[in-house]
Amino acid sequence: MKVGIIGGSGYVGGELLRLLLSHPQVEVTTVISRKNAGEYVFTVHPNLRGATQLRFLPLNLSHIAKNCDLVFMATPHGSSVNLVPKLLEMGLRVIDMSADFRLKNPADYVKWYGWEHTHPELLKEAVYGSTELHRQEIKNASLIACPGCMAIATILGLAPMVKAEVIEKHRIVVDAKIGSSGAGSNPSLSSHHPERFGGVRPYKTVGHRHIAEIEQELNLLANEPLTISFSPHAVNIVRGILSTIHVFLTKPLTTKEIWKIYRSQYQEEPFVRLVRYKKGPYRLPDPKVVMGTNFCDIGFELDPHANRLVILSAVDNIMKGAAGQGVQCLNVILGVDEKTGLESMGFHPM
Amino acid sequence: MKVGIIGGSGYVGGELLRLLLSHPQVEVTTVISRKNAGEYVFTVHPNLRGATQLRFLPLNLSHIAKNCDLVFMATPHGSSVNLVPKLLEMGLRVIDMSADFRLKNPADYVKWYGWEHTHPELLKEAVYGSTELHRQEIKNASLIACPGCMAIATILGLAPMVKAEVIEKHRIVVDAKIGSSGAGSNPSLSSHHPERFGGVRPYKTVGHRHIAEIEQELNLLANEPLTISFSPHAVNIVRGILSTIHVFLTKPLTTKEIWKIYRSQYQEEPFVRLVRYKKGPYRLPDPKVVMGTNFCDIGFELDPHANRLVILSAVDNIMKGAAGQGVQCLNVILGVDEKTGLESMGFHPM
Amino acid sequence: MKVGIIGGSGYVGGELLRLLLSHPQVEVTTVISRKNAGEYVFTVHPNLRGATQLRFLPLNLSHIAKNCDLVFMATPHGSSVNLVPKLLEMGLRVIDMSADFRLKNPADYVKWYGWEHTHPELLKEAVYGSTELHRQEIKNASLIACPGCMAIATILGLAPMVKAEVIEKHRIVVDAKIGSSGAGSNPSLSSHHPERFGGVRPYKTVGHRHIAEIEQELNLLANEPLTISFSPHAVNIVRGILSTIHVFLTKPLTTKEIWKIYRSQYQEEPFVRLVRYKKGPYRLPDPKVVMGTNFCDIGFELDPHANRLVILSAVDNIMKGAAGQGVQCLNVILGVDEKTGLESMGFHPM
Amino acid sequence: MKVGIIGGSGYVGGELLRLLLSHPQVEVTTVISRKNAGEYVFTVHPNLRGATQLRFLPLNLSHIAKNCDLVFMATPHGSSVNLVPKLLEMGLRVIDMSADFRLKNPADYVKWYGWEHTHPELLKEAVYGSTELHRQEIKNASLIACPGCMAIATILGLAPMVKAEVIEKHRIVVDAKIGSSGAGSNPSLSSHHPERFGGVRPYKTVGHRHIAEIEQELNLLANEPLTISFSPHAVNIVRGILSTIHVFLTKPLTTKEIWKIYRSQYQEEPFVRLVRYKKGPYRLPDPKVVMGTNFCDIGFELDPHANRLVILSAVDNIMKGAAGQGVQCLNVILGVDEKTGLESMGFHPM
Repeated sequence: MKVGIIGGSGYVGGELLRLLLSHPQVEVTTVISRKNAGEYVFTVHPNLRGATQLRFLPLNLSHIAKNCDLVFMATPHGSSVNLVPKLLEMGLRVIDMSADFRLKNPADYVKWYGWEHTHPELLKEAVYGSTELHRQEIKNASLIACPGCMAIATILGLAPMVKAEVIEKHRIVVDAKIGSSGAGSNPSLSSHHPERFGGVRPYKTVGHRHIAEIEQELNLLANEPLTISFSPHAVNIVRGILSTIHVFLTKPLTTKEIWKIYRSQYQEEPFVRLVRYKKGPYRLPDPKVVMGTNFCDIGFELDPHANRLVILSAVDNIMKGAAGQGVQCLNVILGVDEKTGLESMGFHPM
Repeated sequence: MKVGIIGGSGYVGGELLRLLLSHPQVEVTTVISRKNAGEYVFTVHPNLRGATQLRFLPLNLSHIAKNCDLVFMATPHGSSVNLVPKLLEMGLRVIDMSADFRLKNPADYVKWYGWEHTHPELLKEAVYGSTELHRQEIKNASLIACPGCMAIATILGLAPMVKAEVIEKHRIVVDAKIGSSGAGSNPSLSSHHPERFGGVRPYKTVGHRHIAEIEQELNLLANEPLTISFSPHAVNIVRGILSTIHVFLTKPLTTKEIWKIYRSQYQEEPFVRLVRYKKGPYRLPDPKVVMGTNFCDIGFELDPHANRLVILSAVDNIMKGAAGQGVQCLNVILGVDEKTGLESMGFHPM
Repeated sequence: MKVGIIGGSGYVGGELLRLLLSHPQVEVTTVISRKNAGEYVFTVHPNLRGATQLRFLPLNLSHIAKNCDLVFMATPHGSSVNLVPKLLEMGLRVIDMSADFRLKNPADYVKWYGWEHTHPELLKEAVYGSTELHRQEIKNASLIACPGCMAIATILGLAPMVKAEVIEKHRIVVDAKIGSSGAGSNPSLSSHHPERFGGVRPYKTVGHRHIAEIEQELNLLANEPLTISFSPHAVNIVRGILSTIHVFLTKPLTTKEIWKIYRSQYQEEPFVRLVRYKKGPYRLPDPKVVMGTNFCDIGFELDPHANRLVILSAVDNIMKGAAGQGVQCLNVILGVDEKTGLESMGFHPM
Repeated sequence: MKVGIIGGSGYVGGELLRLLLSHPQVEVTTVISRKNAGEYVFTVHPNLRGATQLRFLPLNLSHIAKNCDLVFMATPHGSSVNLVPKLLEMGLRVIDMSADFRLKNPADYVKWYGWEHTHPELLKEAVYGSTELHRQEIKNASLIACPGCMAIATILGLAPMVKAEVIEKHRIVVDAKIGSSGAGSNPSLSSHHPERFGGVRPYKTVGHRHIAEIEQELNLLANEPLTISFSPHAVNIVRGILSTIHVFLTKPLTTKEIWKIYRSQYQEEPFVRLVRYKKGPYRLPDPKVVMGTNFCDIGFELDPHANRLVILSAVDNIMKGAAGQGVQCLNVILGVDEKTGLESMGFHPM
């Protein structure tokens, strides 16, 4: 399949390139970047030195139409919404890494993003690109909206418990920790090394946009709507997310029963690992262990003192949280093994 | 005042030395360390090179009795309990940094620490060394039990809201992040740089011992007992704690009203800063900003979506979380300005 | 080919496992670890969770003889020397990651390592496992002694200039920077996160053992012996080495001429990249860019002010500096493409 | 003394503020920042919260003349040169942290900085602000040009050996490692946390401007001019410099003799510590140990194998490398103990 990437100079674009260049069923024909047009992709992504002689191109829709069957949108939020409709019209399939088609309800864009969606008709058509939750719909979708990085970690951590209808719906606390790459490749004072290094910085403590998609997706699994209390923190790592999810049980459950709930939902999933070991420093999920991989590691601990369940969910924000998830969707579309091009085991230590 | 430190080779012992060596009202006469006896203190604490020619001594009670008016215990949990009674008998005052005298109820030692307390009679006498909560009792106490590092951050963050009786008592989620120095100076696989660097590691996710003292101290402020849901995470920094506290309101409150609740409790406190800015990367508390200081920075954000209040509380675990708090208690005892010897502003950036 | 790993629980052993488990021509039949015998390999190497059900075995030579054609020794220095002769006698081929067979002159073991070599007869037979320098000999070697991590970075950086006979032979300054994984997986005070984090620590500033093999290998390329001035520094990263090599020219050379010297030696090498860009933060080699790969990135800058050439050479110490180099040697033996199993591009950023 | 700071919003300006606010002989009356005029200084420097209610002012020379006796220039290179002459004319004393008055030879500004100096007459008058080398001249200077951060570490490390005339003058290799704060407070791609974290990045490998002042100052101590081979590296820390200096001896010297050379020069210096211990992780200078202090830690190791001496010199780039050195100069001017306001011992660990 001939594939293009629009927005190829950001971190997600670079990771898509890395994955797709060695994907056996894919030929990357086109990488678009307005600001880097003309340059070799490896000038921006130093890990690709020696791996490809591709250059960034300026945006040219007819070129894309001629050279691509499918396009990955790795553009900033708010810019996919204008391009995607044209790509779809030209008969291309689209996997959009931005938030522009994740939400079903147009009103949610006003509420959470502060702008009016200009193509609400496409929101119904778009499939939320969580393979674990929408595998069948992804197969034939022409527009896939890939999940937000902290959203997917949280959704996969919570889904089995929400489906089992055993937790309090309005006391779900999600405390996320995320690396600096999550904020993208544009320098700012917040991401300036002397300011970012060594801190634990709460940000968008309330009202974070990922709440909208987390609630949307989990509500599909539940009898009645739930409320997510979500607060992220910027920590001193580059890649990785740990989503610590604190929920309260509505009925008594043993560790074994909870284990069964998770196992039954995820045992066939190629990229969900249940992590709950008795020894060593990595007994529970830690983003350090999934760095560079497409895994979502999920574990939990039962707290009888507070009738609480602590769920831990770790992903690499650029992999399972973005590019890796996108390639997994592509594999579903291609009808190949979902692990194709995503076999990397991760390094240890690093 | 002539002061001794027992357990002077650990991180808290080293910090006590740093603070007390330049304290105008104190003379450090004795520093005990069994394993380093005979060595200069600066061989273990390289920041003290050139600052002192003190050497570690082996434990010798009569030497201590002769040379000290007050002793800081910076020994591991479970070892203070045997020494402190002897020191008190000899007429010394004791500021204990360990957990051995923090809890009032002897049964709590069995429950949370797994051992029977051998001197339950002293638990009533001991004063929990949070200056903000027990200033008057500290003044004349002969035994002060300094708070745990994550405990004090959490207690100071929650106290005003608990006292105001406006939050749900059994849905209090405390998600803590802590630097590697919190685990002490003994190497282990968990603290091995290649394993610890770059991770976000949940540990003692349920059943952490600080829960006992947090509940004890907050219950003193409330009409009925509360339950703390507490989970710490080891993050990629050396010093510092951020305690993110998620609570649900039992009555509608505005930001202004909450601000007033905090202000009224803390406006006279020399080491509590309310942090809630509109600009810059440090709008809310971040341990990076309190490193090396005795401050507890507290901020909050109101979440109307979930009827939630997010409280952020940041301390340096070795300062306000241990040695700094201990010196603040000493200042209360001495009747001098509580800031004496604790004036350091912290560095930025670092 | 059936392959075994002796010393499978260290960082090099774990990396060999990662690489060999997905190597198409290799079956890992045996992983030896005395201290972890009986445990799944993924309990020690968390990145291997889900990738294999192999368990560590205790050392048993007849088991190895039956199940392996080739053995990787990933044991500590001084322990290979006793085992390797037995493995060779049993007809196995050996790729030794330790220093025990790197030096040709038995006297050098006394001088640099402080012990008498018990099998000096094997030193002649052993081939120093730098593919770039000894490809032909590796092909048929029964014993390959893989280079030290800082040694290989330095040797590859210097080799072309030494061969060209254009530098002062006794004023070669090598200033190396290395991550914490280079010291292995055993915790110590030096590697304790609070002590190791945030420092730039010179260690073994003189007399480092890698000097012996660097001089040995470079002397093979030169008319007369040279002297290496070598000093390493422990920096705040986990993986990676930068070797900064300062040499003084004995005849005037232009940048173009130096470029040609490097190009002519390395243009066919699959894992040496010449790095000298005009833009971006990664103009010269940086270990960050080779992390997780088998590349040695080499660059240089000419300093007319001091008649100096600065050569920069970066490797991942566990990959090109150990396991990756070992697998490259294996590929030479197998007669397959040297890149087999080593195709990983590295991640960016991480 | 009434003091002003021009350029108060950068890292050096912030550190000057921190030091001067608690300096017993100084009143900070004026802090200038064009871009932050009107804001509280603590909005930019979060460590100053609660310590001062000062606000940044726009530049106004007559205001400065009225309110200051002495001005610190913490402005970027190339901007002091225009302001300083006016300040001097108004009768103010100036301590300039920029490079604009460090070099004696106007031609050096063309050569190293690329611009023609517009006030060459002031270069003779300006005193290079290294207290250790120019204490007497500083006393009465009206213009002090404070050393560059890597320059001072290197100069102090080399001075005794240069003065002793025992090293090869044109084979002096200085390999420096520096934290991210050294590049200032303006964000860029190079300093973007995802790009800067975890790397060891050589930059300005040849032709670095600090060479000019290092050679100038050391030449004052020597019979004939020397040449410095200098290359810095950006490492994964925020504060701190380690300058590793490799020199070759022209006559045989013992460790004891070298120790004596250093001791005789520095034994009376309040901020130079000779560091050469037999135990522990900090046997030689490490910037981790001087963070937050005004110390320059110097150590060395003799390498008989290469007839080399390795000198290690560590400073905090914002303290002894800038603001701390500036305050030390101020203390000389004031005639007070040079340690006034600079007593901080540094923290450990951090």
